[in-house]
Amino acid sequence: MRNRFDRELVRLNNELIEMGSMIEKSIETAVKAMVNQDVELANRVIESDDEIDQQERQIEDLCLKLLLQQQPVAKDLRLISSALKMVTDMERIGDHATDISEITIALADKSYIKKLEHIQQMAKETMIMLVKSIEAFVNKDIEEADSVIKRDDVVDDLFSKVKTELVQMIHENVDVGEQATDLLMVAKYLERIGDHATNISEWVIFSITGTHPGEKGK
Amino acid sequence: MRNRFDRELVRLNNELIEMGSMIEKSIETAVKAMVNQDVELANRVIESDDEIDQQERQIEDLCLKLLLQQQPVAKDLRLISSALKMVTDMERIGDHATDISEITIALADKSYIKKLEHIQQMAKETMIMLVKSIEAFVNKDIEEADSVIKRDDVVDDLFSKVKTELVQMIHENVDVGEQATDLLMVAKYLERIGDHATNISEWVIFSITGTHPGEKGK
Repeated sequence: MRNRFDRELVRLNNELIEMGSMIEKSIETAVKAMVNQDVELANRVIESDDEIDQQERQIEDLCLKLLLQQQPVAKDLRLISSALKMVTDMERIGDHATDISEITIALADKSYIKKLEHIQQMAKETMIMLVKSIEAFVNKDIEEADSVIKRDDVVDDLFSKVKTELVQMIHENVDVGEQATDLLMVAKYLERIGDHATNISEWVIFSITGTHPGEKGK
Repeated sequence: MRNRFDRELVRLNNELIEMGSMIEKSIETAVKAMVNQDVELANRVIESDDEIDQQERQIEDLCLKLLLQQQPVAKDLRLISSALKMVTDMERIGDHATDISEITIALADKSYIKKLEHIQQMAKETMIMLVKSIEAFVNKDIEEADSVIKRDDVVDDLFSKVKTELVQMIHENVDVGEQATDLLMVAKYLERIGDHATNISEWVIFSITGTHPGEKGK
């Protein structure tokens, strides 16, 4: 029985890794589509969100099955309940990639009022955070999870920079207001993605130590 | 057997009504706390979000139980799967009430740069949409669900107004930029709440007709 339980836990790990890489790709593709004003690619991000939602449901089912059919010890219980919470954050990251793609489509026939370098940098940072938080889960690595939580400051600082820059642009020319608020939303979604990666790392720490360092954002 | 199934469906209705009124209260309280700069009340909104999450999980469990233990006919299957989707939108509405409360807390010791009348109006509109969408579900009322979907334009127009106003204020005085972007986020959260109420009504229509009019927002 125990052996089968362990095999199912390995499967849980693999499904989480799979979902992590689906989401990483979503962020990457969403920002690529935005930079290149590629509507077709943006639509692909939106379509692939269904697969992410299915993957979430599949992992939830597996977790519930593990909770119901076996009698997990405290450590496994923490692991499974952490996985249940982690997929919620992962799924919302996918939603935000969709949010970004919808703005890409709305702006597709307009010239951007600014370079998107900070937005690209934010995306890069959040992808690193996401990958590291999943790695930390799989390797039960508290230090790596901690490094993700600290890294969120980089994303927050980038968001502040983008915000200040856009506010300044609106101040100088009210006509850019419409697009500036759209770009502000994109930066906000990326900041939220960073918050979700932070949440994931906090659940990783909980799954190992039994203590939750406090959730951030939604 | 069928009798017990029907009783469980009545319970599902009641749980959904309960969750709807929890969320309605969250929106109302979040905006009241914001207008009165009442940090304690804002904190209460954030705390009560856990109860909303629990209610969501409870409804999901009930839906899964109904799906697994019984062999529902197509009409009931649609009803149950619609309920499963609806609670996701309802839970996110609760999250946005929390988002608003976090901004309330951040701005608690500052004077507002503008009157919050449009934001209050947005909150009022979204609460009406939410209540009507739940009513439409319970009464299987396609017309009422349709009226909610149409009503979303009112919320979108109010969001546009708030956005234009805030952009203009930033244009005139860059120093208000920080708070203006916070207020813009609050308006955005309310606009999203309207989108979620619209989604709920679309699921209501699906549960009755079997055809989904197309999801909006996330």
